[in-house]
Amino acid sequence: MTDKTSNQMWGGRFAAGPDAIMEAINASIGFDQRMAAQDIAGSRAHAAMLAKAGIISDSDAEAIRKGLLTVLSEIEAGTFEFSTALEDIHMNVEARLKDIIGEPAGRLHTGRSRNDQVATDFRLWVRDQLDAAETGLLALIRALLAQAEAGAGWVMPGFTHLQTAQPVTWGHHMMAYVEMFGRDLSRVRDARARMNESPLGAAALAGTGFPIDRDMTAADLGFDRPMANSLDAVSARDFALEFLNVASISAMHLSRFAEELVIWSSAQFRFVTLSDRFSTGSSIMPQKKNPDAAELIRAKIGRIFGANVALMMVMKGLPLAYSKDMQEDKEQVFDAADNWMLALAAMEGMVRDMQANVPALEAAASAGFSTATDLADWLVRETGLPFRDAHHVTGALVAMAEQKGCDLPDLSLEDMKSVSDSITDGVYDVLGVHKSVASRMSYGGTAPEQVRAQVARWNEVLG
Amino acid sequence: MTDKTSNQMWGGRFAAGPDAIMEAINASIGFDQRMAAQDIAGSRAHAAMLAKAGIISDSDAEAIRKGLLTVLSEIEAGTFEFSTALEDIHMNVEARLKDIIGEPAGRLHTGRSRNDQVATDFRLWVRDQLDAAETGLLALIRALLAQAEAGAGWVMPGFTHLQTAQPVTWGHHMMAYVEMFGRDLSRVRDARARMNESPLGAAALAGTGFPIDRDMTAADLGFDRPMANSLDAVSARDFALEFLNVASISAMHLSRFAEELVIWSSAQFRFVTLSDRFSTGSSIMPQKKNPDAAELIRAKIGRIFGANVALMMVMKGLPLAYSKDMQEDKEQVFDAADNWMLALAAMEGMVRDMQANVPALEAAASAGFSTATDLADWLVRETGLPFRDAHHVTGALVAMAEQKGCDLPDLSLEDMKSVSDSITDGVYDVLGVHKSVASRMSYGGTAPEQVRAQVARWNEVLG
Amino acid sequence: MTDKTSNQMWGGRFAAGPDAIMEAINASIGFDQRMAAQDIAGSRAHAAMLAKAGIISDSDAEAIRKGLLTVLSEIEAGTFEFSTALEDIHMNVEARLKDIIGEPAGRLHTGRSRNDQVATDFRLWVRDQLDAAETGLLALIRALLAQAEAGAGWVMPGFTHLQTAQPVTWGHHMMAYVEMFGRDLSRVRDARARMNESPLGAAALAGTGFPIDRDMTAADLGFDRPMANSLDAVSARDFALEFLNVASISAMHLSRFAEELVIWSSAQFRFVTLSDRFSTGSSIMPQKKNPDAAELIRAKIGRIFGANVALMMVMKGLPLAYSKDMQEDKEQVFDAADNWMLALAAMEGMVRDMQANVPALEAAASAGFSTATDLADWLVRETGLPFRDAHHVTGALVAMAEQKGCDLPDLSLEDMKSVSDSITDGVYDVLGVHKSVASRMSYGGTAPEQVRAQVARWNEVLG
Amino acid sequence: MTDKTSNQMWGGRFAAGPDAIMEAINASIGFDQRMAAQDIAGSRAHAAMLAKAGIISDSDAEAIRKGLLTVLSEIEAGTFEFSTALEDIHMNVEARLKDIIGEPAGRLHTGRSRNDQVATDFRLWVRDQLDAAETGLLALIRALLAQAEAGAGWVMPGFTHLQTAQPVTWGHHMMAYVEMFGRDLSRVRDARARMNESPLGAAALAGTGFPIDRDMTAADLGFDRPMANSLDAVSARDFALEFLNVASISAMHLSRFAEELVIWSSAQFRFVTLSDRFSTGSSIMPQKKNPDAAELIRAKIGRIFGANVALMMVMKGLPLAYSKDMQEDKEQVFDAADNWMLALAAMEGMVRDMQANVPALEAAASAGFSTATDLADWLVRETGLPFRDAHHVTGALVAMAEQKGCDLPDLSLEDMKSVSDSITDGVYDVLGVHKSVASRMSYGGTAPEQVRAQVARWNEVLG
Repeated sequence: MTDKTSNQMWGGRFAAGPDAIMEAINASIGFDQRMAAQDIAGSRAHAAMLAKAGIISDSDAEAIRKGLLTVLSEIEAGTFEFSTALEDIHMNVEARLKDIIGEPAGRLHTGRSRNDQVATDFRLWVRDQLDAAETGLLALIRALLAQAEAGAGWVMPGFTHLQTAQPVTWGHHMMAYVEMFGRDLSRVRDARARMNESPLGAAALAGTGFPIDRDMTAADLGFDRPMANSLDAVSARDFALEFLNVASISAMHLSRFAEELVIWSSAQFRFVTLSDRFSTGSSIMPQKKNPDAAELIRAKIGRIFGANVALMMVMKGLPLAYSKDMQEDKEQVFDAADNWMLALAAMEGMVRDMQANVPALEAAASAGFSTATDLADWLVRETGLPFRDAHHVTGALVAMAEQKGCDLPDLSLEDMKSVSDSITDGVYDVLGVHKSVASRMSYGGTAPEQVRAQVARWNEVLG
Repeated sequence: MTDKTSNQMWGGRFAAGPDAIMEAINASIGFDQRMAAQDIAGSRAHAAMLAKAGIISDSDAEAIRKGLLTVLSEIEAGTFEFSTALEDIHMNVEARLKDIIGEPAGRLHTGRSRNDQVATDFRLWVRDQLDAAETGLLALIRALLAQAEAGAGWVMPGFTHLQTAQPVTWGHHMMAYVEMFGRDLSRVRDARARMNESPLGAAALAGTGFPIDRDMTAADLGFDRPMANSLDAVSARDFALEFLNVASISAMHLSRFAEELVIWSSAQFRFVTLSDRFSTGSSIMPQKKNPDAAELIRAKIGRIFGANVALMMVMKGLPLAYSKDMQEDKEQVFDAADNWMLALAAMEGMVRDMQANVPALEAAASAGFSTATDLADWLVRETGLPFRDAHHVTGALVAMAEQKGCDLPDLSLEDMKSVSDSITDGVYDVLGVHKSVASRMSYGGTAPEQVRAQVARWNEVLG
Repeated sequence: MTDKTSNQMWGGRFAAGPDAIMEAINASIGFDQRMAAQDIAGSRAHAAMLAKAGIISDSDAEAIRKGLLTVLSEIEAGTFEFSTALEDIHMNVEARLKDIIGEPAGRLHTGRSRNDQVATDFRLWVRDQLDAAETGLLALIRALLAQAEAGAGWVMPGFTHLQTAQPVTWGHHMMAYVEMFGRDLSRVRDARARMNESPLGAAALAGTGFPIDRDMTAADLGFDRPMANSLDAVSARDFALEFLNVASISAMHLSRFAEELVIWSSAQFRFVTLSDRFSTGSSIMPQKKNPDAAELIRAKIGRIFGANVALMMVMKGLPLAYSKDMQEDKEQVFDAADNWMLALAAMEGMVRDMQANVPALEAAASAGFSTATDLADWLVRETGLPFRDAHHVTGALVAMAEQKGCDLPDLSLEDMKSVSDSITDGVYDVLGVHKSVASRMSYGGTAPEQVRAQVARWNEVLG
Repeated sequence: MTDKTSNQMWGGRFAAGPDAIMEAINASIGFDQRMAAQDIAGSRAHAAMLAKAGIISDSDAEAIRKGLLTVLSEIEAGTFEFSTALEDIHMNVEARLKDIIGEPAGRLHTGRSRNDQVATDFRLWVRDQLDAAETGLLALIRALLAQAEAGAGWVMPGFTHLQTAQPVTWGHHMMAYVEMFGRDLSRVRDARARMNESPLGAAALAGTGFPIDRDMTAADLGFDRPMANSLDAVSARDFALEFLNVASISAMHLSRFAEELVIWSSAQFRFVTLSDRFSTGSSIMPQKKNPDAAELIRAKIGRIFGANVALMMVMKGLPLAYSKDMQEDKEQVFDAADNWMLALAAMEGMVRDMQANVPALEAAASAGFSTATDLADWLVRETGLPFRDAHHVTGALVAMAEQKGCDLPDLSLEDMKSVSDSITDGVYDVLGVHKSVASRMSYGGTAPEQVRAQVARWNEVLG
């Protein structure tokens, strides 16, 4: 019965036969209307150039440019009626322009084609998203810096294999993500610089015989220069793939952090408390706090990288220049962009709100003789013991502490000397988690002083 | 400037702060409303069972079941107002049910949870799509059988490396795709049989203490049986991944055929003419006929397999039982299903309409001494020449024909005997493309007789 | 300096110019030698058929079949010298056969081609892997059943969002994976049945004029039947893609379980102790136990599904019949198969060895008022309270227990009645984690009795 | 029977039980030995720094550095015996160093860990590959420039939808790929600059208490600076993912060009003749020329992007810092790098060798009234006709030419004037494919003059 409903819907959709199927598979207005602002900006720049180059009259250009603003305002107001029969955003805008200004509208398409027009629109749209991503990444980095500054000295376990390996500081952990998102930001900027070239004027694929000025339209639209080959201009989609690459790596970083937040929120860890705004609870189980937002962020890499796969697959093996396959590019990029921005915003919010459970972090860091390597290193460094011997001594001391039911710093100097005569009072400078982290002063190390230096460096970089 | 618009939109969306972000990332009603019919079917079955098991009264069950039909009719009529605040389809339906029937609505959720409810809805939805895919595949296979029957004897080049290797028949080529789509169909059926188990009654994850009858709801919803482990019932998404697997392989087959149609439609090949309904032209270049639908079908594997990647990535490494990550499953499956069905329908339409260019196919098949291997095989078969010697003789005869500017069957018996004395009149039975194909009578071979036998076999299978 | 070394190596490799490059990109013997046994089995079947059909003499067939066994024994002994100049396994075997038996070797290739030969070899190889996967999955399922039987009554937390939701049993959790790997097994069997058709005799692509008997070779090689279309036989790779699909879903299940083992092994959870054989430790930190094998299993889905993507991308948009692109199919399948088998074996070993930490599991299950839903359900079920009111009462009782610093079963009946008069002694039957799980007797529920019934059912199925 | 062989092999491999399985899944020496040169370079830099910082003696450092060169020479000579028991390249080298120089070898590992060591080795290896890719891309670009220069004036069809749209020049088409591979090159350089930071000195994850000088080792190894966060240094793999991203987009460009070469080599197109060095033929079908290398290049994106998917999947959701999952990173990157370099070299060779079939290109460009848009544009440009009217006139003239069985430039001026009075002699300046391309003088257009200007610009850029 549910089957029937569904099959009927499906059957119903295509019941009108081949024409309905072709319209369903062919029309793009359902999604490319999101590029309306970009399309109109591109057309306005084109019209201004046509007039400057003497290809159309100044009055026609003025009418076109004014008319396009009217169209834009209708779209922004939600009063524009999009028509599937007109297939795409370009035709919808042009048809409406003709309604408004009449005959001059027909001159707008001189010296260009839908091929370079859509390439221009799409580049402008992707560029806007790169700018939005920069904003989102910067906000997230700032939230992390605030956490790092507050907790430069809070001690927590540094994990390998999700097993405590060595104590680190909360600030150090936060700063690791600052570095990752910082590289994401640098990838965003590289991608923007590389893709910021104008396809406008490539026409269908071969350029045009009209005396157009591609530098002028490029400058008008904020592009650094016109693209140097018209076939490439209408064929290339590496800018969209690079956008998806950059978004995917960033989503991977978000997913790693989100995984940590999910684990840290568990009853067994309790390293962190997420705010109610980004979690959901149970009316009858007061302790339950589901980290919904973290889980959804963790999952977002799926659809973002899925979009990457999808477009790579579409482009693989496509001959030049334009093939209709390429119409599949936009929905993937739109969806990936929306979800990347959303994940960045949600992560920023969570980071700002989250409360580290400092005592729990410190207790976890202290368990399991986590400063044993500090002891071994101290033996090498201060007593000149070879590495292997130092390990032997450390093992004996850990065994002693385990037997006594205490931690390493609780052993007396006498106890220590009974294992290795060369141990001195100085050893207590590196035992205990706070001393351990304070001693790791190598550049980029976990010492609070190093963390604060890195926070300061980043604050300076961000201005 | 375009940037600003976009950033404002982005900023605007989240300006209301964390709550707006959380709502944006958390709510699923925007897409899961597509499962309304399945949700209501599941709830109606559950209510009937609760009454039968004595857990709720018959009159409450009746009120619930009737009320749910009212809700369904409102949704189908488009008058239902979906609320984002109510998050998902389950809460939207239940809230409206309460408006309509009051207090008994509160008893519907007894002995179940949103976890088993959504698993049930989603399975029903996917099952419907498998049924729709069966319909679509059968229609496409029938269209191919019609082409195969008509052209069982038309000769065309059989390609390897896009180079003519041997002559084959049009019908044989069509039947190759019948086999591929036939296996797709078999995968659809296997997937349906495997996934047709009911999660309903698994409750949150542990089952329930209410004396529910899971067999009854399973049977009512057309499931073969209840799932045997409640944790698995709410955690598993392999049924959705298998759906995407099956759809992806089928999309790969569609993409291969679409590639052929694009190449065959080129001015250089002209093997086939697509109908105007599935192509677009140029008003001023009458020969130009863009195979838009074929190109879009060729591209569809991108988004279908992209969805597969996306969901695989989401599920990878998720602990049991339900994690919110899994909310990302539906949009991927919805989009893949829509596009698979659309591609099947478009391909069926194109196959029904397309016209083979029989003379061009035959001319292409005949070029390049394409029956040279037939000659060599004949020499081995009929004269007992070792394989290698047969190749030597064939090479000499091809060289002779090339020099004379004729094809192999145009050589006289005398000419042939001048190269190898053992050649007889019988050789002409395999030279020339029609004789070549007729001679390939091995089971599954390209001979028209074999092709017709396969068409007959398939027609019998399909009934 | 490292650069130079590497570039020199690269430069060095290709220094000999185009021929070295072509050999490097073209030759497959480096990997397809893994199909030697399959290639020889196929050739032996083909030779026997050729003799039976009177195409070659019995003595030639005998010489060929015996000679091929000699070649096989050389390969198995590691004394065979593979030659890159001979490009692939087929030519290597055939050349060596000629060395051994002389002229009759030249008759082996009658009525077949490298195209159907490689398709046959590859299907046989994949079929062997499906059989190996069946073995591996069965062993893993048996290991899980043993754990489930032992721990049918051990209580542990049932998680949603990695937060304790309800108590479940260890056996129930193990059985969830039995169901998942059971469906993997069913997919393996479906895939095997579908792909078990013989391409042999399809020849280059069109079939052959020799009176071959494809049924005979199919039967000889254990295939159910010959493939029905010779173009399809040499063009299709959906059997390989389906293998990768099945492996990928299974790897996803392995990855989920491995993630749980990693989390469960952490110092914070301590739910399970992995054996030293599948983990590594630290000489100076006795508590540290890195779950290396679990982490590697968790990662394996990457390369297995990566192979799936790789082959799907290769096949997308390939025209019929054979294209050289398809040579890229084998390495992906080989690597995925190796890693799937390895992951199954490692997981089976870990499951057999692992020790549940029963007290820790129970303590975790008991925390956080995890039986609050049992209480609410009991109120609905036994006192007829509407769902919402039952929740209100439960919330009040949880608050009371929290205030008193005790768990729900520790509240006196008097305390309970002070909140809701209708509560009776019976409530204690569902409070406390053991009573909670025992009460969840719905089919597939977590009650020990249900778990044991499922273990028994599976033991019967497996025989 | 084949089954048995395979299962025995599989069984055999793991027969020794859990230990054999663990060794098989855990050891990395089978592949990470490829980083031997990088490992030794890193260790030599570390030893020099330890001495300079006074952590070890100068003589120990000297012994270590000299001993490591000996190890390297053994490895390069192929006399080094790798041991699986020693697990990885680091332990193999260190153990051998100890054999050679004795006790000082034990001091090498002071102040570092395998975690920062492997991160350093891998970065150095990837950096070498980026350098190799730069070399390969530059060589390919130079080959394309040579083709573009030679054929700046050769006319060929410019396709959309694989249908002739407008005439373009061979040089213009080649230059489109120069632009694409040029952007690939720019991505390579950006990736190199971003990843060229040293993890050495991050130690296990927290930095170290030894007074190491990370700037010194960074400089010694050619890194721009040390990484600023030690947790990040051992956890990050975005440099490897970015490498795979860059390789994937480049492979996509290679795949597009390869597809064109396959199509252009078909008997139906004959646009290009590939050299025998990169194709294979048939001894008895002289026309057949299989573009094997092009097909294999077309396929390479599969495994390169498959590796990208694999590693992305591994890294998704991994908590900091090191997890064993990350051991799966190297094989993917190794395989992708090898195949990218191979594909670049093969493509360069093919481009250098290939012969354009100039007459066939021109004939194809001329067919189908391909200069109709030139005529329409001329009417708009020179006679001031509105766009739509120009199209109407053009349509009438095409119909006239079609009826007369001639091309547009063959119509007399009188004929033309009979359709539109405003047409003048000047129209012949844009009709005919050579005039069409010559007229497309917009920046980046297809005019030979524009193509030559772009070739000159690129030659200047490359120096």
